[in-house]
Amino acid sequence: MSKPKVFEKPTGVKDYLPEAAAKLRSIELNVMQCMERWGYREIITPTLEYYDTVGVASSTEDKKLFKLLDRNGTTLVLRSDMTAPIARVVSSLLQNEAFPLRLSYQANVFRAFEAEAGRDAEFFQTGVELVGDASSESDAEVIALAIACLQAAGVKQFKIAVGHVGFLNGLLQETLKHDAEAQTLLKGCLLNRDYVGYREALQELQLTERVRGELEGILRLRGGQEICRQARELTEDPVAQHAIAHLCEVWDVLQAYGVSDHVLIDLTMIGDFSYYTGMTFEGYAADLGFPVCSGGRYDNLLKQFGRPAPATGFALKTNRILEVVGRETLGRRLRKTLVLYTAGRRADALARAAELRTEEGRTVETRLIPEGFFVAVQGLPYDDVLEFVGEG
Amino acid sequence: MSKPKVFEKPTGVKDYLPEAAAKLRSIELNVMQCMERWGYREIITPTLEYYDTVGVASSTEDKKLFKLLDRNGTTLVLRSDMTAPIARVVSSLLQNEAFPLRLSYQANVFRAFEAEAGRDAEFFQTGVELVGDASSESDAEVIALAIACLQAAGVKQFKIAVGHVGFLNGLLQETLKHDAEAQTLLKGCLLNRDYVGYREALQELQLTERVRGELEGILRLRGGQEICRQARELTEDPVAQHAIAHLCEVWDVLQAYGVSDHVLIDLTMIGDFSYYTGMTFEGYAADLGFPVCSGGRYDNLLKQFGRPAPATGFALKTNRILEVVGRETLGRRLRKTLVLYTAGRRADALARAAELRTEEGRTVETRLIPEGFFVAVQGLPYDDVLEFVGEG
Repeated sequence: MSKPKVFEKPTGVKDYLPEAAAKLRSIELNVMQCMERWGYREIITPTLEYYDTVGVASSTEDKKLFKLLDRNGTTLVLRSDMTAPIARVVSSLLQNEAFPLRLSYQANVFRAFEAEAGRDAEFFQTGVELVGDASSESDAEVIALAIACLQAAGVKQFKIAVGHVGFLNGLLQETLKHDAEAQTLLKGCLLNRDYVGYREALQELQLTERVRGELEGILRLRGGQEICRQARELTEDPVAQHAIAHLCEVWDVLQAYGVSDHVLIDLTMIGDFSYYTGMTFEGYAADLGFPVCSGGRYDNLLKQFGRPAPATGFALKTNRILEVVGRETLGRRLRKTLVLYTAGRRADALARAAELRTEEGRTVETRLIPEGFFVAVQGLPYDDVLEFVGEG
Repeated sequence: MSKPKVFEKPTGVKDYLPEAAAKLRSIELNVMQCMERWGYREIITPTLEYYDTVGVASSTEDKKLFKLLDRNGTTLVLRSDMTAPIARVVSSLLQNEAFPLRLSYQANVFRAFEAEAGRDAEFFQTGVELVGDASSESDAEVIALAIACLQAAGVKQFKIAVGHVGFLNGLLQETLKHDAEAQTLLKGCLLNRDYVGYREALQELQLTERVRGELEGILRLRGGQEICRQARELTEDPVAQHAIAHLCEVWDVLQAYGVSDHVLIDLTMIGDFSYYTGMTFEGYAADLGFPVCSGGRYDNLLKQFGRPAPATGFALKTNRILEVVGRETLGRRLRKTLVLYTAGRRADALARAAELRTEEGRTVETRLIPEGFFVAVQGLPYDDVLEFVGEG
């Protein structure tokens, strides 16, 4: 392997130059303020966690964790999400705070990908966890909040697809019984949104016409409120029926929030099914092939940290949102002033600069010029140039 | 070694609960806005960098770097400061931008310490780099900006100690000539602020009375403007004379900024002398034993990245500042409202909650209660409780 060149950086990580950085910070600030108004309080956890605790509990595949050893030889990870660290804090430092707990975060998280994959190894998330409430009301709250946050971030056009892992699990269990291999095959196709592969797999499996029809029927379960009724008719499995009843309640609450126009039900969407235990959702912005947010219910995580509790939440992928929002997101742009001065009038010039910064909120740069020196101010990137020259 | 307990986190890292997190973010925001008004634009660089480039160029001792391997077997580091990554960006992505460049950052940085030392392994910095200007004017600008930032952060009482590595280097070179060992010994004492050890070392070295007097004289070179004159009289070494002349100019500019009351000259302070090449400074808050900011001139770093240029800057240690500022730093506290509702009045309740968030900027939590259910609202942590119950 060759030594990296001095100006190179590792695969999958980025520099954000001033314009992008200002936009990213503006998105983060708007989103965090939105979350605060909904009663979510920010917490900050460390970048490094123990592999055996937070690393193992995270939803990230083992091979995608960045690992390193501490001085005692214990394996650490760079956090791959914020849900597991927050579960740790809820179960320890916050163990005496009553449920429901509403917590928010903005953080960079890490995933090790193959160099060829071209995926981000470090990315930015802002998100929430609503802990201690199992109701459809709380699932709807986090979806409605995700919508409010996308709007606060300046995303103009987006759709939230909502599913439920219980529906597919119930249906597959009912139809394929103990054929775990077939279940995994079909789930894998849906996870990758490979509907052609899903249909092919159905053809190859030994199934009755009725079962094949039911399983193909899933692919049509994407749309508005009418999907709830259609799904109810597709199966009699109690787990699937329970899932669809919950989802219909979530839909009703979203209608009360007045945001159901942004939502579609998608029962083919299963998210990370080893982690989520109920409702899952993903947000898609127009013209972007990957989700700008994702979330769902995870009722089994907290008990791994010793404080069993239902929980639901989501993360916005802030650096992806950066790609879909325009410069107007920046909002205020400070007026830029250059103050030029000669040594004899330094104190006047610096006092004026301080005044413009504090009282008018301008951006002011100052520059000493030699006596008798002229600066060509045309074409410089300032709104005003003030000169304090001579002996004053 | 034993397996960590589920709620444990690695040595030297911290969780920040809501009140501390809100204070930290408020400090960061105030400081970043102050830097912006002085013309500094934020950039964001990755947490992971190559060891062979940024790792080696950083001012951090090798054994204090967190190292890990990427998939290709190349050694990466968790950044230990932001100065070296910014030098990389200035020399690559920003190579066509004219000097002076004013850049700012807020970032978490990492240092591996012995577990027993009780030092932070991850901490938060906000800082600036002013690149491409070798003048005393620019050294004074960053000191004056550090003062403005500490004030913006809410630090009430502080002093900035300013020194110059050239003064001590010149004086030691003049007096101890080629005795590198003695120079290192004396510098080590000053670096650790071990003045007793410094005096003992002087007694043990073979020195003339005049030289010993000169070297002891350094310890008295701490104070106001008068130190400039005293230092000039202590030595005739041209390097030391040049350093002291530069420092006097910096002092004059700081007087023009009207901030010299916050500053003292301290020629015993040498900072990280392998890294800094000129003026260095540290900020101390009342009642805190460690610096809340540090900075200085580093004219040799940029050339390691292929774009030689003088540079000066500083970093505020944000999480230390957190310990010295009061809750009033938080500024605004949002009014907290709880909206209780029964299912029949859900839409009214949620609409009112949205209105209070958007139009009055309140924090509003909502909670569904069963019909006929009463909530004891006394003692709950809300400023108001609104009820939407019954059929409406």
